[in-house]
Amino acid sequence: MAEMAEGSLPHGGRLRAAAHHWRIPLQHWLDLSTGINPQGWPVPELPPTAWQRLPEEEDGLVMAMSAYFGTAPILPVPGSQAAIQALPRLWATSRVGIVSPTYAEHAQAWRRAGHAVREIGFDDVERHLPMLDVLVVVNPDNPSGALRPLAQLQAWRAGLAARGGCLVVDEAFIDATPAHSLIAEAGRPGLVLLRSLGKFWGLAGLRCGFVLGPRTIIDALHDEVGPWALSHPARWVAQRALADAAWQASTRERLQRDSARLADLLAANGLESTSGCALFRWLPLGRARELHDHCARKAILVRHFPEPPHTGIRIGLPADEAGWEKLADVLGAWQP
Amino acid sequence: MAEMAEGSLPHGGRLRAAAHHWRIPLQHWLDLSTGINPQGWPVPELPPTAWQRLPEEEDGLVMAMSAYFGTAPILPVPGSQAAIQALPRLWATSRVGIVSPTYAEHAQAWRRAGHAVREIGFDDVERHLPMLDVLVVVNPDNPSGALRPLAQLQAWRAGLAARGGCLVVDEAFIDATPAHSLIAEAGRPGLVLLRSLGKFWGLAGLRCGFVLGPRTIIDALHDEVGPWALSHPARWVAQRALADAAWQASTRERLQRDSARLADLLAANGLESTSGCALFRWLPLGRARELHDHCARKAILVRHFPEPPHTGIRIGLPADEAGWEKLADVLGAWQP
Repeated sequence: MAEMAEGSLPHGGRLRAAAHHWRIPLQHWLDLSTGINPQGWPVPELPPTAWQRLPEEEDGLVMAMSAYFGTAPILPVPGSQAAIQALPRLWATSRVGIVSPTYAEHAQAWRRAGHAVREIGFDDVERHLPMLDVLVVVNPDNPSGALRPLAQLQAWRAGLAARGGCLVVDEAFIDATPAHSLIAEAGRPGLVLLRSLGKFWGLAGLRCGFVLGPRTIIDALHDEVGPWALSHPARWVAQRALADAAWQASTRERLQRDSARLADLLAANGLESTSGCALFRWLPLGRARELHDHCARKAILVRHFPEPPHTGIRIGLPADEAGWEKLADVLGAWQP
Repeated sequence: MAEMAEGSLPHGGRLRAAAHHWRIPLQHWLDLSTGINPQGWPVPELPPTAWQRLPEEEDGLVMAMSAYFGTAPILPVPGSQAAIQALPRLWATSRVGIVSPTYAEHAQAWRRAGHAVREIGFDDVERHLPMLDVLVVVNPDNPSGALRPLAQLQAWRAGLAARGGCLVVDEAFIDATPAHSLIAEAGRPGLVLLRSLGKFWGLAGLRCGFVLGPRTIIDALHDEVGPWALSHPARWVAQRALADAAWQASTRERLQRDSARLADLLAANGLESTSGCALFRWLPLGRARELHDHCARKAILVRHFPEPPHTGIRIGLPADEAGWEKLADVLGAWQP
C-alpha cells in the first residue's frame, strides 16, 4: 500500500520498525530517537465539537498566535513539514542554498519543485550568497543542535532582501531558547520563519506548525494549502498550549537542565557531544552504527546518521528517572 | 491576518460569522448549513501518545482502510480538501471537465494548477467527453444531493481510461448509500475516488480523507503531500471509526429515516426539495435569500447558494427532537 512509502527519507520516531527488527516488544523501548520533549504539554479532553465541526477562523487561535509570536503575518499549517513541502512552490525556478548537513526534507522539497539546490556548509555561505535567491537555515540545526549567530542571520536576510531574495529559517527547535529566534524580524521583507508545536511542546502527533513572513508570501502559502488545512483539534490545542506561559517557563528550565544532564552523562561515558540544543545532543562518531546497535540491543532507540563524513548519533531526553537510569546503564556498558 | 482569508470561496459551517451578523449568541443557533451528520461517531478519550508521538505507518490504519475500502491503493489525507488541492498538480496541463454546478473547490483547484477547466452540466458530459483529459464528478452531488447512475460513471471511466484520461469521483457524501459508490472499481486505470470521514461519520473537525486510485497516482500524491500529513489523532480515530460496523449500520438507517423526515417537513411547508441525499436536502428556490434570512432571524443557519440560475438552499439534518421542533416552527412561519 502507498502507506508503506511514507517518509521516503529515513526519519526518527520509527519505534515500531525497530521493535520488529530487534525483536523486542514495543513497550520495553526507551525512544530517544527524536528531539521531541518527552513531557509534552498535557492535552485535556476535547469537547465533541472539536472533532465534529469544521474549524472556524474566529475561534481564538489568531489571538493566541499574536500573543506568542507577535503580530507579523502568520499562517498555521498542519505541521511545519507541510510548510516545507509547500513553500518551494511559491518561487519561480530559483537558486536555493541549504546550509547543510541538516534536516534532509528541505533540500528534497526544493529539488522536487524544480529549483537548483546547492547544499552549503555554514562557513561557506558568505561565498555563495551572491549567487543565491533563497537560503534555508535550520536554527538550532538538526541534527547538530548548533545555534546560528543572530547577527549573521540578520545580515544574510538583509543581503538577500536587498535583491528580492529570501532567507528561510526553520526554527522548529527554538522555543526552549527564544532569545535566539529571529521572531522580532518576522514580517520584514525576505524572511520566512517556520515554527512548530511538535518539539518544545512535545505535540508531534498533533501536526501543527506556523509560518511567519511578509504578507504576500503568507497569502500565497495560504492559497497553496487551502481551507481547513489545520484540524479542529489542532486549533483547539494550539491556542491553549501557546497561551500556557507558566508551563512554557518551567519547561524551558527543565529542558535546559535535562540537556546539560545528558551532555554530562555522555561525557562521563567517553562520548563527547560537541553540540546540541535543549532537546537533544549530537555525537559525531565514526562508530555511530556500533553505538546505535549497542543501544538497540538493550531496547534504547537513538537516531543514527550514517552519511560520511557526518556520521553520528542524535540522542534525545529521557522522560523520567527510570529512563535516565536505563540510559546510564547502557552507556556504562559501551566500550569507547 | 492571513487567517482571515481562509476559505476564499464561501462555505457552510460559518456559524460564528452568522452569530455575529445576526446578533444572536452562538449557543442559540441550530446549524443546518452543512451536510455533516450531526450525531457523529463518538470519539473516546485519546491516549497521550496520540498527541505526543509522530504518527507511524504500522499503527493498524492500513488494515482498517483495507477492511472498509478494499485493497486498492489508498492514501489517507488530511481532509479530502487536501486531496482536491493536491490532485491537479499531478497532471501536466490538461483539459478538465467539472460536472457543474457543484462543490466549487474542484474547479478552483484545477484552474489554480493551470489546467483548462470547463464546467459542464451532467447532461452535456457525453458531448464534451472526447475533448477531455480529466472529468470530475461529485457523487452524490453537492449541493443537489443527486446520485449519479453507476453505469454512466463506469462508461465514462472506461472511455477516459482508454486514451489515458481519468475520471475523478468525489464520494465525500456516499457512505450512507454505499451501493452507489464506484469503490468496487477502485484501483482500475483512469479512476480516482475521494472519500471522507467528515460527513457520514460527522468528524469534519478531524480533517481525514482518503484517496483511492491506480498505484502511480497514489504514489505521486503521496510524494506531493509529504510525510506525516495525517495527524496522529486522525489516524487513531480513523481506524476505530472505520472498524465500527455496528455504528455504521445503525447510522445508515437513522440518516435515511431523518432525510425522509426532512423532505416531508419541507414539503408540508410548501418547500419541495427536488433532490437530496441521506445527509441533506436541496431546495431550488428563487427566493432562496429570503428563506435563508427568514431562518437566520430565528437562529437557524441554512446554506444559501446565490448564483443564478442555480439559486437555492441546502439544508442539513437536525441533531435532536428539539432541533426538529424548532425547524418545524420556523418553516411553519414561512410564507411560500
